Order: sequence, then structure tokens, then C-alpha cells
Amino acid sequence: MPERYFLQLSYKGTNYHGWQIQPNAVSVQEVMENALSKILREKVAVVGAGRTDAGVHASFFILHFDIENGIPKNLDIVYKLNSFLPSDIAVQKVWQVDEEAHARFSATSRTYHYFISTEKDPFATETSHKYLKPLDVDKMNQAAQKLFNYTDFTSFSRLHTDVKTNNCKIMKAEWTRHGERLQFTIKADRFLRNMVRAIVGTLLEVGQGKLSIEQFCKIIEKQDRGAAGASAPAQGLFLVDIGYPENIFK
Amino acid sequence: MPERYFLQLSYKGTNYHGWQIQPNAVSVQEVMENALSKILREKVAVVGAGRTDAGVHASFFILHFDIENGIPKNLDIVYKLNSFLPSDIAVQKVWQVDEEAHARFSATSRTYHYFISTEKDPFATETSHKYLKPLDVDKMNQAAQKLFNYTDFTSFSRLHTDVKTNNCKIMKAEWTRHGERLQFTIKADRFLRNMVRAIVGTLLEVGQGKLSIEQFCKIIEKQDRGAAGASAPAQGLFLVDIGYPENIFK
Repeated sequence: MPERYFLQLSYKGTNYHGWQIQPNAVSVQEVMENALSKILREKVAVVGAGRTDAGVHASFFILHFDIENGIPKNLDIVYKLNSFLPSDIAVQKVWQVDEEAHARFSATSRTYHYFISTEKDPFATETSHKYLKPLDVDKMNQAAQKLFNYTDFTSFSRLHTDVKTNNCKIMKAEWTRHGERLQFTIKADRFLRNMVRAIVGTLLEVGQGKLSIEQFCKIIEKQDRGAAGASAPAQGLFLVDIGYPENIFK
Repeated sequence: MPERYFLQLSYKGTNYHGWQIQPNAVSVQEVMENALSKILREKVAVVGAGRTDAGVHASFFILHFDIENGIPKNLDIVYKLNSFLPSDIAVQKVWQVDEEAHARFSATSRTYHYFISTEKDPFATETSHKYLKPLDVDKMNQAAQKLFNYTDFTSFSRLHTDVKTNNCKIMKAEWTRHGERLQFTIKADRFLRNMVRAIVGTLLEVGQGKLSIEQFCKIIEKQDRGAAGASAPAQGLFLVDIGYPENIFK
């Protein structure tokens, strides 16, 4: 009977073509499968909690995998993995879960941060979006609050994805300022592909005065991807939390 | 009559062979001189507040330069410089000072931070020293306090430098913990070359239990560079502040 494990990791996305395995490009998923297969001496396939696009970071990510004979009791797998993996991927924790637990389908929420540098910052070129024009953050927050009034976010999704519905339940959406850094925090039960970056890009147009709050609402109501602003660049986006039922962290 | 200006900048040292101009290697000083010469249309030489070694960062740095005809009133030099400079160097401020003000000789103190990651951190590979073995931070702090009892730091200097004395007045020396990050803050009127990294490297040996606090003191008393521990690596070190008399910031 195979055993199922959850694994908590973090990665800097700069050097990867996103989470998901694809031909001719290095993905975090592929690197993790290779590391686990090597250390556990059997072919290991991993299932991630979601996809992150090329260049997007995760300070918190969960994957699961099944192995035939379990992890040997005397193997410090976290230490082994961290020694084996490149410096831009780190493993924090590996633990056994019930066989029904699923990294993606058991997740009840995801939280993202999007960082904007409002001054040139030599230390954040790969981890924030530099945006030097003046922004009305109060207005961006007022617009962000309107997200709670809607459930269909087709306007902020990428076309031609295979999901059944474009409905998401927004749980948090807020801009905060930390010195010369703006942080957008958004939490929902699920996100459509490209959704956070499309929301941030459109909120930046609100912040510049190019869009009113009413126009922002109209864009959502149109349920048309062409209506929204340009996506904000990948390097500012961090997946920072994934919610699961308590018993998974037993 | 030439005018003298101070310029405040920050840089990520990863891609530079330190502050000081040298043959066959890119330095921050050279990049700054080129940028200023280009924008001000005259050959500009700059004098830095000190030297940082290859790979060392500065979140705060001051240089001065003299120019014949002053900076044109309608030139937004900070904006121009930031557009011209690479993404890992940023300019915060440029202002005229008295002709006696000197970036290096007017400075009354320097403050450095040294960062240690006590867990693998994918986001800090270029800005901290990864150190996973257990450390007794209390003991490292007790040893750091002993630095206040001494003024000659020959044991923590590089051999064959051209300074007249090896005397420094330590004003602050303290380890603090921020989650999985240790921060060493050290402030003095001046520092010898390599001094902070040699102190940190030796304090790490105290933290591991390889050296007692008494042995740490003996090392200083020996006034012999060979006695100290290995230098901690460059990427954890940040110059974070330089003190000047108030009137320079008029």
C-alpha cells in the first residue's frame, strides 16, 4: 500500500519557467521530481497545489507524492533534499498524510502578495515590480474592495483555459505601504490563471487615474478578458500561503 | 570656482569587484564616474566614503565630486542617473556641500550589518551567509561586547594595508534574531580592511563553541592577523550608514 506525503517548499521563480513540467524548459516540478526520485530511489511523481507562471515566486508551496515503501525512518529527507536541490529551492517540511489528502483539491484557499517598488531598489529587481509614477493607493484600495461584490472573474483570466467555471470567492484584497514598497495581499478559495497579475495591472491603472472605480467595476461585469488592463509583470508576485483543513497538519 | 556635491547611493555588490576602481574588473566607482561624466558632460572623478570589497553591498553609501560649472538648475540629476545606471545601483539624493566637506574624511562613523540565514532561504542567496549549524547567539553577543574593551584591531585586519594605525573606536556591536535570520550590527568611527568579516567569522567560531570568550579576547590582544578565524563571506555584508556632522545635510 503506497504512502502519501505532503512537502512544504519555497522557491525563487526567476530561473524557472513556472511550476509545471513542460518540454524544453526547466520547471520547479521537474527539479522536485528528479530530487525526490534520486533520494528515494524510485520514480516519484509530484502534484502541486497549483501552478505558478514563469518568474513567479513562492515563499510557501505544497506538493504531494506517493511512494511504495514509505520514507525510511533513518533518512533526514529535508536535509538531504536541501543539500541536493539548487540554492533557489528550499524544503521546510515533509510529513505523511491520509491517502485522501490532495495538495490541490484539499486546498481551501490561496494567498498571494504582489510587491511594487516605488523607488529604484537595487536589492529587489527580481522580487518586485518597479513603478515610479505617482499612485493613489487609497483609490486602489477602494477599487480592490469592490472585488468582494463579484464572483465571476472572467475579465481577469487568460483565454482558453480548461477550468469549468470562472467563479472565485475573494476573502481578502488590500494594499499596504511599507516605506518605499507597496504590498497587495489577495486571498481567495481559488484563482484563475493570470488573475492576480491582471487584477494588479488594472488596479495600477486606477491608481494612475486612468480608470475610475466605476470603470473598474464595469470591467469585471463585462466578463471579457480584453477589457482589463495589462498584466503586471511576474517578478512582483509571490504565492505566500495555501489553506488546508487542520487535520492535514496533524 | 568648482562646486562640490555629495551623492547618496545604494548598490547590490554581487556583480561588482567592490567599490574601488581597478584594472580589468568592473567597480561601482567606475560605473558612477562614467554615468556622472556622461550626464554632466565633463570628466568627473568621485571620492567614496570608503571601500567595500567584491560582493559586499551598500544600502547607504556617500561619494563626493567636484564640477566646474555646477549642476544645471533644470537638470533632474537623480532621475537621469537612475535611468542611466544599471538596475543594481540606485541614487537617492545629490546636494551641494561646502568645498571642505569630504565623503571620506568628514565621516565620523560607519555602520555595517552582517546577515546570516539559519535556514536555506531561496530569496537571500546573494544577500546573506547560509549557516545551518547550531549557534549560541547569547555567547556571540557576550563576546561581541568585549570589542568595546579594545582599540587596536590588528588581529581582524588584512596584512600589508597602508593605514597608519589599526585603532578603531567601537560604538555598537550586537547580534539580533529576526525569525530565521541573524543580524550583526557593528558601528565604529572607522574600520580596517576586512575587519567586519574577520570579526563575524571569529564570532561564528565562538557561537559554535570552538572558541571561548576568553580565547576571543586573547586573539584581539595578540594583534596578529593569523590568530583570528576565517573571514565570513562577502555576500552577507551590508554598509548601512555613514555618520557626518549635521551641517553637511543642510
